[in-house]
Amino acid sequence: MPRNPQILLDNRPQGEATVDNFRLTEADTPALAPGQVLVRHHYLSLDPYMRGRMNDSKSYAAPQPLGQVMQGGTVGVVEESRHPRFQPGDSVVGMGGWQTYSVVDGDAPGMLRKVDTAHVPLSYYLGAVGMPGVTAWYGLDQIIAPKEGDTLVVSAATGAVGSAFAALARARKCRVVGIAGGPEKCAYAVKELGFDHCIDYRAHPDVKSMAGALKAACPDGIDGYFENVGGYILDAVLLRMNAFGRIALCGMIAGYDGQPLPMANPALILINRLKVQGFIVSEHMGMWPKALAELSDLVQLGKLRPRESVAQGLAAAPEAFLGMLKGKNFGKQLVKLV
Amino acid sequence: MPRNPQILLDNRPQGEATVDNFRLTEADTPALAPGQVLVRHHYLSLDPYMRGRMNDSKSYAAPQPLGQVMQGGTVGVVEESRHPRFQPGDSVVGMGGWQTYSVVDGDAPGMLRKVDTAHVPLSYYLGAVGMPGVTAWYGLDQIIAPKEGDTLVVSAATGAVGSAFAALARARKCRVVGIAGGPEKCAYAVKELGFDHCIDYRAHPDVKSMAGALKAACPDGIDGYFENVGGYILDAVLLRMNAFGRIALCGMIAGYDGQPLPMANPALILINRLKVQGFIVSEHMGMWPKALAELSDLVQLGKLRPRESVAQGLAAAPEAFLGMLKGKNFGKQLVKLV
Repeated sequence: MPRNPQILLDNRPQGEATVDNFRLTEADTPALAPGQVLVRHHYLSLDPYMRGRMNDSKSYAAPQPLGQVMQGGTVGVVEESRHPRFQPGDSVVGMGGWQTYSVVDGDAPGMLRKVDTAHVPLSYYLGAVGMPGVTAWYGLDQIIAPKEGDTLVVSAATGAVGSAFAALARARKCRVVGIAGGPEKCAYAVKELGFDHCIDYRAHPDVKSMAGALKAACPDGIDGYFENVGGYILDAVLLRMNAFGRIALCGMIAGYDGQPLPMANPALILINRLKVQGFIVSEHMGMWPKALAELSDLVQLGKLRPRESVAQGLAAAPEAFLGMLKGKNFGKQLVKLV
Repeated sequence: MPRNPQILLDNRPQGEATVDNFRLTEADTPALAPGQVLVRHHYLSLDPYMRGRMNDSKSYAAPQPLGQVMQGGTVGVVEESRHPRFQPGDSVVGMGGWQTYSVVDGDAPGMLRKVDTAHVPLSYYLGAVGMPGVTAWYGLDQIIAPKEGDTLVVSAATGAVGSAFAALARARKCRVVGIAGGPEKCAYAVKELGFDHCIDYRAHPDVKSMAGALKAACPDGIDGYFENVGGYILDAVLLRMNAFGRIALCGMIAGYDGQPLPMANPALILINRLKVQGFIVSEHMGMWPKALAELSDLVQLGKLRPRESVAQGLAAAPEAFLGMLKGKNFGKQLVKLV
């Protein structure tokens, strides 16, 4: 069996995460037991939720264990199989982690799924037609539940979730405004991703300025907000929400490194009779087939053309991950192994 | 026609509200036009929401206008009528304001409703079988939507809303824990109102201490919270909410006097996948008949025995109102005029 380079979580961040929290190592790939499948990973997915799991704090998911392979989504190709449903050469999506190979129990629910690469590129199953896409779908469809003509806002607009959100929102005939970092991302959001408008948060670094930009971009107020970031952007959005608005809380990345970030004026939730709801897409697996079908259709129709930031080789994963947390990526952040 | 003593809002509070914000005056009662009804008020309702309306800030309701009679709920008896549906002697509930008489258009929707005083005391239509009762019902039934065995918490537990909440929660076979100010109110909450436990917030004046008290009172965590207060109590509750918990935001009285009170850690909404929803009961009039029917039944069965704090005479209204905002009342705060 082949040798298996892998990246472990070596120690937990004190404040900001650094490359020294990770360790590159190599292990043997065990021989397959009956029912197991050997997958060679072509791409690793890097996602903001992983930062939360690096902390040893009570959260929805167990913390990433120390000294073990960083967990995460992967796409790849079956190299060997002792499971009747998987054949060498099959394209698969799974949770193989930050390593070159994984050995997977073919029957473990949700751990390995064959995918069609004739119409959708393999890497998209980690982004637009994968967990981030379904995340956008769930927050939009199940929490924000917009009606035609609503004004919707999403932060981290050019990321994997934001891109899918824009396409899904347009399919529902909503006006969709993004928030992203820098003029290049904002131009791309409008030109390529179908946003009606995109606000550069770097040009609006405080609540008052951001609230002003939101007022200009959303003259009819905001009916739905998809939150990937937290912090002062959420405070500014709250000032511009319409009565009966809905906020889907998906990420609060701004608060991962240290003290919790407060919400300045929660009374606005009452004053405007808002619904604010947190969710984790992996707890709603029953919705995935419906969401993936819509996302796959949008990709095949050319209405969802996600951008990818691709780092080369396993050793580049930690730096690419830390860069993504700072918004250095542009679109879905991947690591290409093959 | 009789002379009509009344209390106006004379000027707006700078920070804390004071008796000097109000002015007692007297007006003529106009002769009735066709379709109008003259009501003599027996009780005025004093409610926390009125404090919010004294500020000149953007909120769900227009601010209470300066120089006009303080608006509010009233129960009384028809003295004269030029409307076919109302007869002298009818008991009615309406929005007559802080005055002795009101002249009401009998056809104005929601402004005047005949009530049965054979089975429910007249004053209860301002409390347990009125707006506060329906408020408790809506937050519990439509937002918290508990299942049998859930642990529910309500602040301002011995107030009109809290009392009704306890009876409604018990009818749904939930464990219900109150938060109130002082040992006397807490003992009453448990002995008379049916709370399983009541926490004295004066003995727990900070987040950490309150969170500890909630942990002791709710060993299985909190599934639903009905918020009448805001501030540090909400922060403490957020620390003890179970996954998929629901928070109905009804009042944020703690923040009325000055700067908005922040929420310390909104990321908990995401971490525990909570739903936090604000509401105003007057926007859900379609639900009132169902809610009032259940509340009336609970009163008649002796399962909801609300307590009232009754101030005597119109001139006592401002002081009684300000005392209520500080929790000096015990149960529904009324002003008796007749």
